[in-house]
Amino acid sequence: MSERLARVTLMRLAEPGDEVMGRLVASRGPQAAVGQVRRGRPDPEFARWFTRSRHPGPAGSRQERLAARLERMFASWAARLETADPARDLAEGERHGARLVIPGDPEWPTQLGDLGESGPHALWLHGEADLRFSCLRSVAVVGSRAATPYGTHVAADFGAGLSERGWSVVSGGAYGIDGAVHRGALAGETPTVAVLACGTDIAYPSAHHSLFAAVRSQGVLVSECPMGATPIRPRFLVRNRLIAALSRGTVVIEAAVRSGALNTAGHAISLNRHLAAVPGPVTSQTSAGCHRLIRQGTAVCVTTPEEMIELVGAMGGDLAPEARGPVLPRDRLDPDTRRVLEAVPARTGAGPATIAVAAGVDLETVLSCLGGLAAAGHIERVPRGWRLRPERPPGR
Amino acid sequence: MSERLARVTLMRLAEPGDEVMGRLVASRGPQAAVGQVRRGRPDPEFARWFTRSRHPGPAGSRQERLAARLERMFASWAARLETADPARDLAEGERHGARLVIPGDPEWPTQLGDLGESGPHALWLHGEADLRFSCLRSVAVVGSRAATPYGTHVAADFGAGLSERGWSVVSGGAYGIDGAVHRGALAGETPTVAVLACGTDIAYPSAHHSLFAAVRSQGVLVSECPMGATPIRPRFLVRNRLIAALSRGTVVIEAAVRSGALNTAGHAISLNRHLAAVPGPVTSQTSAGCHRLIRQGTAVCVTTPEEMIELVGAMGGDLAPEARGPVLPRDRLDPDTRRVLEAVPARTGAGPATIAVAAGVDLETVLSCLGGLAAAGHIERVPRGWRLRPERPPGR
Repeated sequence: MSERLARVTLMRLAEPGDEVMGRLVASRGPQAAVGQVRRGRPDPEFARWFTRSRHPGPAGSRQERLAARLERMFASWAARLETADPARDLAEGERHGARLVIPGDPEWPTQLGDLGESGPHALWLHGEADLRFSCLRSVAVVGSRAATPYGTHVAADFGAGLSERGWSVVSGGAYGIDGAVHRGALAGETPTVAVLACGTDIAYPSAHHSLFAAVRSQGVLVSECPMGATPIRPRFLVRNRLIAALSRGTVVIEAAVRSGALNTAGHAISLNRHLAAVPGPVTSQTSAGCHRLIRQGTAVCVTTPEEMIELVGAMGGDLAPEARGPVLPRDRLDPDTRRVLEAVPARTGAGPATIAVAAGVDLETVLSCLGGLAAAGHIERVPRGWRLRPERPPGR
Repeated sequence: MSERLARVTLMRLAEPGDEVMGRLVASRGPQAAVGQVRRGRPDPEFARWFTRSRHPGPAGSRQERLAARLERMFASWAARLETADPARDLAEGERHGARLVIPGDPEWPTQLGDLGESGPHALWLHGEADLRFSCLRSVAVVGSRAATPYGTHVAADFGAGLSERGWSVVSGGAYGIDGAVHRGALAGETPTVAVLACGTDIAYPSAHHSLFAAVRSQGVLVSECPMGATPIRPRFLVRNRLIAALSRGTVVIEAAVRSGALNTAGHAISLNRHLAAVPGPVTSQTSAGCHRLIRQGTAVCVTTPEEMIELVGAMGGDLAPEARGPVLPRDRLDPDTRRVLEAVPARTGAGPATIAVAAGVDLETVLSCLGGLAAAGHIERVPRGWRLRPERPPGR
């Protein structure tokens, strides 16, 4: 069984975000993990880790109960394994026009590694945009489904403002803020990323059918669920960690004090991403969650897309804000990256294959170098591929 | 010439906030300051201080120019002195129903000492409320004259919420936020304080005539300008330092990025008072100044009067927030203060004179103890005087 088929199988076995399965896969590899589920029991060392990590100390009845719990987990995974058919899943996904990416693939967003053992086993993607490149300069924009006209106006404004400045939006696919920010982003030319809590073949909510079609043509739909998976409530909550992890920072536009958007905000904080919130009228309960984040000092108060870009652009020492110019001067790039950069055209864009030929390096190297060059502000994505980014004076 | 007459004279000589005059008064006393102005020149030591503090180092043409500048200041003060008539000013003020308070008077708010040499020489007060007591638990609420309906709604809500909880409002008398917060405060029973940039006899703006009448009957009008002084622009700016200095903290409700309210905010910061701002729609330019203060971390984001009280109530180790109960338990009060506290009735209020008789201490001691007892949360002001504040459980 290939790693790809094993990971498609794993998508069927455990619910997304299951850290026990995550640990099994991380420590034993995806094929061996499926093999253990097929045998219906974990290897003894894994069982010992599971019980000891939850109840250190001498063996006792507490550890016996834990061992029994792990056995029940394996039994439920094994039951699902009986109906799993990874080859059919792969064919089904491709028939819908989606593609599967797994860790190590050029399109895999490596920042998902920050999720550790709760990270996804694989992702189904459906859309024209390259997920990894789209997320290099991306901002998660989240908020209430029951948004006010003020909230949807601001969300659309943020979507358009981010997209016009070359920053991708990452959001869900719900009514309210999610939908408004994607619509705004579609007004620009930058890909927009919708992370779903159901299979990419399920357009949920169905009234967003045409919105999802537009996202597919200019951006990409993302899901860690297999085809046909329906959106159930816990999947929305675990989905939120992907939104936070894919982007450099999250901004909350309208959230009541018990909004699911605050769950995404919590993931952003625990992932060490930037968190911002947009204020609103203090008379609006729909802004109360945003104000609480700002008051607590958990979120930075941002009022415009530019301020959000300033926040995430300044993040980390290795990535420069757009307006400050590249962090790494050309002469400090490694030889391969410099050759790739020299092969990127200045005005009209070129695709990775063209650049690979011009640079005299293989396609895989080009794909891995382009991301870093874009992140450092040397090149930018245009409809026909990549081109040099015009130099700008330092400062704003 | 009495100190009182000297200070009334000084109100006519220099513009409010003039730090050179402030230094002269602080170092030589008010009567001697008027005497030097009458002679048309400063004493040699003061002249040396003036030139040396601005241009340390060996004597030279720069210092000669500074000496000439000081002489011109004295000449302009002397010219004003010729037309000053302090006895007439005092009579005129009293005829209007106002009263003069000077440093050392029981009603003088000692926190004005934080203004140092830019503090007022004296204050004209007009209204039923005691200024010093009113300001013990007070919040400055400032904002745009060109407020939106959102801003005036929030300001009225803050005024009412603060007043209902026994906190005085300190503000100006302008259209917009100032007027709305006073109207809100008048809905409660706590005095409201309007600090004017003109004489208390000048109702400016005139459309606020009836508002000022209501403030006089439930609170107090305050001015450091003599009767008949008209509101000119620089007086508004120097007036703002009084608003910030009188209160424990300032909250800005609606301010564009160039609003005069931000000037008050700056005074609050430089006086080490708390500063807060109320957010609003990011689409409203009238909230842009508030958002900038919050973004910079200069102001705390507050959305309700309770949050503002929490902020200023927690200020300093010596003053307790209302909800946390007194900081100083009764048994740690000094003997005089304890006797005064024991003489304060529990339910119906009593005036200072009644309390003085009951406590067996003199009136001046009672007046100085009542302030500290109110600030520590032991007693509260009611229409008929002072009474014990009901104990509340700690926490909220």
